[in-house]
Amino acid sequence: MSRPTQVVIVGGGFGGLEAAKALHDAPVEVTLIDRQNHHCFQPLLYQVATATLSPADVAWPIRGILSRQKNVRVVMANVTGIDADARLVRTNSGDFPYDHLVLATGATHAYFGHDEWAPSAPGLKRIEDATEIRRRILTAFERAELATDAAERERLTTFVVVGGGPTGVEMAGAISDMAHEALAPDFRNVEPAASRVLLVEAGPRLLAAFPEALSAYTRQALERRGVQVLLGAPVTRIAEDHVMLGERRLPAGAVIWAAGVAASAAADWLGAERDRAGRVIVGPDLSVPGRPEVFAIGDTAAVPWEPGRTVPGVAPAAKQMGAYVGRLIGDRARGEAGSAPFRYRHAGDLATIGRKAAVVRLRRLTLKGYAAWLFWGVVHVYFLIGLRNRIAVAFSWAWDYLTFGRRARLITEPAGVRPAEAEREGSSGVPSAPAAAKAAQPDAAPVWR
Amino acid sequence: MSRPTQVVIVGGGFGGLEAAKALHDAPVEVTLIDRQNHHCFQPLLYQVATATLSPADVAWPIRGILSRQKNVRVVMANVTGIDADARLVRTNSGDFPYDHLVLATGATHAYFGHDEWAPSAPGLKRIEDATEIRRRILTAFERAELATDAAERERLTTFVVVGGGPTGVEMAGAISDMAHEALAPDFRNVEPAASRVLLVEAGPRLLAAFPEALSAYTRQALERRGVQVLLGAPVTRIAEDHVMLGERRLPAGAVIWAAGVAASAAADWLGAERDRAGRVIVGPDLSVPGRPEVFAIGDTAAVPWEPGRTVPGVAPAAKQMGAYVGRLIGDRARGEAGSAPFRYRHAGDLATIGRKAAVVRLRRLTLKGYAAWLFWGVVHVYFLIGLRNRIAVAFSWAWDYLTFGRRARLITEPAGVRPAEAEREGSSGVPSAPAAAKAAQPDAAPVWR
Repeated sequence: MSRPTQVVIVGGGFGGLEAAKALHDAPVEVTLIDRQNHHCFQPLLYQVATATLSPADVAWPIRGILSRQKNVRVVMANVTGIDADARLVRTNSGDFPYDHLVLATGATHAYFGHDEWAPSAPGLKRIEDATEIRRRILTAFERAELATDAAERERLTTFVVVGGGPTGVEMAGAISDMAHEALAPDFRNVEPAASRVLLVEAGPRLLAAFPEALSAYTRQALERRGVQVLLGAPVTRIAEDHVMLGERRLPAGAVIWAAGVAASAAADWLGAERDRAGRVIVGPDLSVPGRPEVFAIGDTAAVPWEPGRTVPGVAPAAKQMGAYVGRLIGDRARGEAGSAPFRYRHAGDLATIGRKAAVVRLRRLTLKGYAAWLFWGVVHVYFLIGLRNRIAVAFSWAWDYLTFGRRARLITEPAGVRPAEAEREGSSGVPSAPAAAKAAQPDAAPVWR
Repeated sequence: MSRPTQVVIVGGGFGGLEAAKALHDAPVEVTLIDRQNHHCFQPLLYQVATATLSPADVAWPIRGILSRQKNVRVVMANVTGIDADARLVRTNSGDFPYDHLVLATGATHAYFGHDEWAPSAPGLKRIEDATEIRRRILTAFERAELATDAAERERLTTFVVVGGGPTGVEMAGAISDMAHEALAPDFRNVEPAASRVLLVEAGPRLLAAFPEALSAYTRQALERRGVQVLLGAPVTRIAEDHVMLGERRLPAGAVIWAAGVAASAAADWLGAERDRAGRVIVGPDLSVPGRPEVFAIGDTAAVPWEPGRTVPGVAPAAKQMGAYVGRLIGDRARGEAGSAPFRYRHAGDLATIGRKAAVVRLRRLTLKGYAAWLFWGVVHVYFLIGLRNRIAVAFSWAWDYLTFGRRARLITEPAGVRPAEAEREGSSGVPSAPAAAKAAQPDAAPVWR
């Protein structure tokens, strides 16, 4: 009896999960590798960052999602490279041989060559990003409450969001809503309603992928809720307490990055051809040219779409690619012949702005305002994983809507800082480097062959 | 017009909150200082540590709780000392003068002189403790899934809980339930049902504050769910991967500390007389001898109770003391005379063991098993803060009970470690010390006068 076909999927995001699920009835053994144990529903991360939802509302353990699929095993490991000739995926927990390989490793933040901006301006790709942003925003208000200098208080309650795509728009609108509604009764010295949110975009309009009319509506909707929109304003420098737009200096209490992403290291691992954003250039069946057994999907792949455009880095695209590749590999494992090329079906674009305002562009229908916001909510709840989370999130949203509350307004410290150590350090609050390094050091990984 | 009486409360736990609330109609201005922004419902922290609840289910922003009380302002700051003669509380954000001072700073873990055990055996006092313990337990299973060595796999799925009081019992029972029920379907190589939980207690029985019969029942109930109980077994050494009981070595995948607490630094700040656990010795009205305007309450105070005993460090005691002190200070501010001494009313003791098992001892009634478990659940939901959280927690419990699930099974990294940095470090996964120190460094605090 021959060994079953081995399929390795790297990445447990939208693309990787769909690929695994599509193989449920194929004569294969699937190994899904991810460096984290959970699948993160990225479209709702901004709600963790603005204290509406908790991490467990938008993330689920991957092995929990796939536990009933008996031909899948889930491995939590860091991929360090790929030996494409030997057909091996190398990780810090050993090597994994494959007959077919799917790279679904997504994207991460890119700072246009200015990686030094990263500590000052976190992006929003992982749970930890969201809780860090939440911490910075809430801490800025706490410090503003104690500030005696009016200019300092104003700086601390000024938030700069860099990037006018859907993520930037959602963050700017949500911070503004949070400041004006949920936080306002809580403070005595600070007027959260007087806090300022600046949304900075280098291009000429917000939501560049949307029709002009919706971009204009979005700008007005944001300005009505007190967000200042700066267009044609590329960022030239970012520090912890300010952002430079050329000559103009914007003091800030926190800076959030929503302006650039770059593909994961998949192209590096393969030594494959890549585009300017680092994405692996793939063929019509999403395989890597010259390596028909290796596929790249989702944000980490550059897939030709319309003339001059590639498939956008959105969740539905990743899911379609994952399903396609899963079926293709299943067919091959069953010995069935070829397959039609991948064709992306663009269902539409959605972006939420804030309370009761969103924009939706479907193929035949455009919505804005309240109807769009309801539609956006229903779609996102529908695509959550698991009935329980749908109930929990719908309940949170309903409660917040009625009470203007946000219940997850917690400042949780990074685990490397213990209050006792902070006290021993005196009033500076800076932990000693050995203590922080020791606290952050993970266990040595076991060896697997 | 004279300045209103200034009351400073240090600590936003059960005691501090009750004191603030009791002053709601007093002619005072209250400043409540806490180093964190949230109040943590400690009795349910073990459920965050075992992936049943999320942090936001058991913690609420203090200023949110007190937002409607107009004579209270909340300050997030680290107290560095007290000048009792000048009547000033010193913090890293400035000095706060007081006419009356309430110290409600609680307790922290104590390792019987072995502080070096702390990194290997986290305790359970703060949200960050709970998520760290959760991370260690879930990571141990992830690594066990990849282990090829049977002894290593067995070590990784062995969990040692040190301390046989209510916290230790709850943790041991919950880890056992989690491993046998929620995690079992998720793994292929590991048999979570074969994982072992050891509860280690130096004394002769579990739950030393409970009647013997309930201690015996608890031990049996734990053993029936697969927990190994070791009594008369003081720990002599703790490392990341094992615990020593004298000559006997227990390999472990994670160690949890539930054995010793010591009072906060309040006695240090005051230079006051303290007992062996570091608690401030207080008089019949909970004031510090010689300082009638300074009070200490809750876990940080040693309050005489029955002959040879002090009031236990439990939440109801802290709340009663807080309410008492709040009323006393309010009376003084109104110019009303003296007050009866504080009298603690012990309602009873509760401890939960696991699914459908708990022990309850009230003054006239003892319960065990299913009835006790229901009672425990109702009491804890009742004492949560806010209707919304009661609904959310009750819903989580009901869902978990029916499905044997645990939905918060997330491994979230400490914020000082970014996966990109882990990759750059190669397979060791250890971040460079400067990176970890930089990530953990909070902003410089503003000065307030």
